[in-house]
Amino acid sequence: MSDKKKQIEQMIRPNCRGFEPYVAGKPVETIQRELGLKKVIKLASNENPLGPSKKAVKAMKSAARKVFFYPDSNSWALKQKIAENFRVKPANILLGAGSDEIIEIIAKLFFNQADEVVVSEHAFIRYKMAGELMNCKVVSVPMKGFKHDLDAMARAVNSRTKAVFIANPNNPTGTYNTKGELERFLSSVSVKSLSLPPLVVMDEAYYEYALVNRDYPRTLGLLKKYPNLVILRTFSKIYGLAGLRVGYGFADETVVDYYERVRPPFNVNLMAQRAATASLNDKRQVKRSVSMAEAQKKWLCGELGKLDIEYVPSAANFILMEIRPFSGRYVFQKLLRLGVIVRAMDEYDYPGFVRVTVGLPSENRMFIGAVKKLIKK
Amino acid sequence: MSDKKKQIEQMIRPNCRGFEPYVAGKPVETIQRELGLKKVIKLASNENPLGPSKKAVKAMKSAARKVFFYPDSNSWALKQKIAENFRVKPANILLGAGSDEIIEIIAKLFFNQADEVVVSEHAFIRYKMAGELMNCKVVSVPMKGFKHDLDAMARAVNSRTKAVFIANPNNPTGTYNTKGELERFLSSVSVKSLSLPPLVVMDEAYYEYALVNRDYPRTLGLLKKYPNLVILRTFSKIYGLAGLRVGYGFADETVVDYYERVRPPFNVNLMAQRAATASLNDKRQVKRSVSMAEAQKKWLCGELGKLDIEYVPSAANFILMEIRPFSGRYVFQKLLRLGVIVRAMDEYDYPGFVRVTVGLPSENRMFIGAVKKLIKK
Repeated sequence: MSDKKKQIEQMIRPNCRGFEPYVAGKPVETIQRELGLKKVIKLASNENPLGPSKKAVKAMKSAARKVFFYPDSNSWALKQKIAENFRVKPANILLGAGSDEIIEIIAKLFFNQADEVVVSEHAFIRYKMAGELMNCKVVSVPMKGFKHDLDAMARAVNSRTKAVFIANPNNPTGTYNTKGELERFLSSVSVKSLSLPPLVVMDEAYYEYALVNRDYPRTLGLLKKYPNLVILRTFSKIYGLAGLRVGYGFADETVVDYYERVRPPFNVNLMAQRAATASLNDKRQVKRSVSMAEAQKKWLCGELGKLDIEYVPSAANFILMEIRPFSGRYVFQKLLRLGVIVRAMDEYDYPGFVRVTVGLPSENRMFIGAVKKLIKK
Repeated sequence: MSDKKKQIEQMIRPNCRGFEPYVAGKPVETIQRELGLKKVIKLASNENPLGPSKKAVKAMKSAARKVFFYPDSNSWALKQKIAENFRVKPANILLGAGSDEIIEIIAKLFFNQADEVVVSEHAFIRYKMAGELMNCKVVSVPMKGFKHDLDAMARAVNSRTKAVFIANPNNPTGTYNTKGELERFLSSVSVKSLSLPPLVVMDEAYYEYALVNRDYPRTLGLLKKYPNLVILRTFSKIYGLAGLRVGYGFADETVVDYYERVRPPFNVNLMAQRAATASLNDKRQVKRSVSMAEAQKKWLCGELGKLDIEYVPSAANFILMEIRPFSGRYVFQKLLRLGVIVRAMDEYDYPGFVRVTVGLPSENRMFIGAVKKLIKK
């Protein structure tokens, strides 16, 4: 290592030195460029293949000439629209550049060095990364049958616990915890003899897909009773605005008040604000997207069953599966060469698995076709 | 204070408890809504009133339907374009959601609690905020005639100094430090008997405007000699893309390598990547914008002179001025009611001043007209 490099490494915060970069799903263009393929489909990042609402597209086009202005730092119109839509006060709304950023801002706002953060093993990896960024102790609780084990997570909470992250449904397993399980967890954490309860961050990025399940918890109604609850939602999934980066959430007014002081002043860009606001006027796009995902998930699971491929039943728009005897990384590589981008699950500690987004009917057929080629070989 | 509120406040990191929110320039729509005014112009946030390049607008419109995809996490095309444009390697390029985010990521990556950060008094306020977020000691060095006093800043550097921020030209004064001053600073900091030199972060958000001055430093050529140098630029100002949030920078490869590990994976949104890439193909828009700003700045200064209003000669696209005997806050309020948004400078510790962006000719005339009314009253 050169002296210069060594010197710079010495300047870096010790807890950041061992960080690995987050590995994102590769864009279609990247794979086309790297492998010289013409037809490539991406089933890697749980995007909504029906795309954004036409109303959002119109809003973006008419905003294009206006982007020389800074965004509204207070996202006034978007907050009004969310408030109206979910019957909450603007003072209870969090906004960020994806719920990803809201997670990080919560970490910056609440996490002291040596605080503990409880996560579930195999949960969305960004919780752990946010804890580590702030030099916390991240306590990872084993899952129970691919699901968050909320009872075990409640037992892991102690007086040093600053936050518990619950992904519901969870990425990448697609499983969810029921209303009953969640309420038991919340009340058991509250009655523990702690001077302060931990924040309970419910990440509901796939909320709209999970709502078809009757026992899926409606958390918004719990906020009054549990002011330590933070609910995260996003425009990146069913609303088809992943590329613009806009997530939202609900929390107690005091949490929002402090959040506003710490967040970057222009964290939700102008285009994102306008497109998200317009999207909330298009309930049909959401309905259509849920129906298609439901029907296609059914079809995909049927096909996987015929091929004897094990998968985890999912409440979201993706499926975690194990294509034996291959490793997830091998499956990823082989499918890539056939023009299908999926995600290997090594960083989620599932080296045998891949996660596949439920796509358009034609995309799902192409995926199943590629899997058949892979298995035959 | 309610018990609930008290409890949440106890959970917050002690160094964040006293934070005040950043006060951004208010958008035109907000003022129209709040004051019931029809004609409102914004000269508050140093945006380029000529707007984004037509090429950028075209790129945005054609990207509108594609935003259901996540952005390219590596911003491949944009980095290639910047590399080509400035003759650097992609491995030397930093990207962020505005240079604002780059500043914060540098803080997260390098600043330990109790590290010292040297800034100039009356410099862009976000440096101080980034230092405070990481619980650093922020050392503010007095200015000399509205300019960064680089000699005094060099003297303030000691073995605990992790970074020095230099805004060049500075916002809100519009002043710049010359090539000679900067080189003297860099070499004097390097020869100090420190085990590690501090990072020297040059914020050149208004670079393109300042280039008309021959003695304005060309910092890119200094990067090889000073690997502790970090140069920040932005697409928010002359490129007219403030609303999309995209800043860039240049640094040593090792700095970039670690930066990539800490930054949010999708920090530059899809629309921003495409618009910024297209903007770099339009050199004429930059030229036109510089010429207009130069000519209009001259006109404005002439008018201010006639009205006996003192101002600081500016190398950027804004002017700091003192409209005696009124306070900046009073001027701000009065001009607001006349439909002109400017910025009061209280948070920069210039309570007697306002900062006014150089706008379109018609906007500048409207501003001068409003000032005349204000003075007459």
